Amino acid sequence: MAFHYPNGKKFIFPKEKTQPSIKKENQPSISYGKRGMTLEEDLNETNQFYLASGKAVIHKKPTPVQIVNVDYPKRSAAVIKEAYFKQASTTDYNGVYRGFYIDFEAKETRNKNSFPLQNFHEHQLAHMQQVIDHKGIAFVIIRFSSSEEIFLLPYSPLRKYWDRMKSGGRKSMTKNEIMQDGYKITLSLQPRIDYLKIIDHLCPAADDRTF
Amino acid sequence: MAFHYPNGKKFIFPKEKTQPSIKKENQPSISYGKRGMTLEEDLNETNQFYLASGKAVIHKKPTPVQIVNVDYPKRSAAVIKEAYFKQASTTDYNGVYRGFYIDFEAKETRNKNSFPLQNFHEHQLAHMQQVIDHKGIAFVIIRFSSSEEIFLLPYSPLRKYWDRMKSGGRKSMTKNEIMQDGYKITLSLQPRIDYLKIIDHLCPAADDRTF
Repeated sequence: MAFHYPNGKKFIFPKEKTQPSIKKENQPSISYGKRGMTLEEDLNETNQFYLASGKAVIHKKPTPVQIVNVDYPKRSAAVIKEAYFKQASTTDYNGVYRGFYIDFEAKETRNKNSFPLQNFHEHQLAHMQQVIDHKGIAFVIIRFSSSEEIFLLPYSPLRKYWDRMKSGGRKSMTKNEIMQDGYKITLSLQPRIDYLKIIDHLCPAADDRTF
Repeated sequence: MAFHYPNGKKFIFPKEKTQPSIKKENQPSISYGKRGMTLEEDLNETNQFYLASGKAVIHKKPTPVQIVNVDYPKRSAAVIKEAYFKQASTTDYNGVYRGFYIDFEAKETRNKNSFPLQNFHEHQLAHMQQVIDHKGIAFVIIRFSSSEEIFLLPYSPLRKYWDRMKSGGRKSMTKNEIMQDGYKITLSLQPRIDYLKIIDHLCPAADDRTF
């Protein structure tokens, strides 16, 4: 069954967190070789690896929820009985790497040859612009789920295509454009999506912020 | 009625966000001169001011909630019917200022002469240590609600008092200790709690990270 945000966006349960994992005894734990992991799961694993290996401190922000009614049963945990999803006012991920402030949004599409810009919101682009203005690093990580290709696209080309849409142009970026302006990230075992390698490439020196 | 986290911590509704503001017509909007605002409300106003005036991009993270059950009525917004408060894995506030990664937690006490260290958690101190290791700036903002005095205490003295507690010492910091190792922030009209002024004092140069 599909849940939707007030804006009609589909809500997908973050698997590990919200679905209680019921594991029967004597049931062998089967590994499917990480097939079918979502971009969010891959990024969470990546960030955990970065954290554990002392490389960076980057976390996903909690899903913003507007709490309306809470029940407080005696001798047990408070239960939220009524709440609503809120639109996030910023991007989903942020943190610190080599003294840089890192800020990004991650989205995937089933399209094969283009990435719809409606995956992002005006206020997210405004937020990323503010991050850049304050010498932070802002980008998006986008995934073509059919081909499992992942790209890091810095804020400035994203803004370029966003402005093209705003001035009446196409409502998406073509894959060719993303390949030209972005950086392909090859999936690996650990970390799954090594996006900091791209940051090292783009900002080799401590104060070289090219985003 | 009081709600509590699973850890027994009291849950306080963030006023502006979760209580629908019902304003009757013809009812004059009365200003009480900002009396009785919580530390969180003051900091949210401060951060909004910083953002609007182009000074910094610092946001409070959403309250982490574990969603268990969502109802999706036709033609209206999804309703979360069962959810639980989760312990935050990091601090509450982070963002970017002058290229610095800023990370802090804010807490208040009704005590007059000491600040209980149980307001913080082991994993929050671990998180702040990681931030420092990656050249970010980490601190706490603490408020004595009886006297309305607010202090910025950098991570390193906080760690000192935390370690003292861990080795069997007192479970709080005295107000004198906080006055000695921290920086008093005088409440003003706008921004309410100008904590970035302290950061400017401590890190005058772009790459002078003394935290």
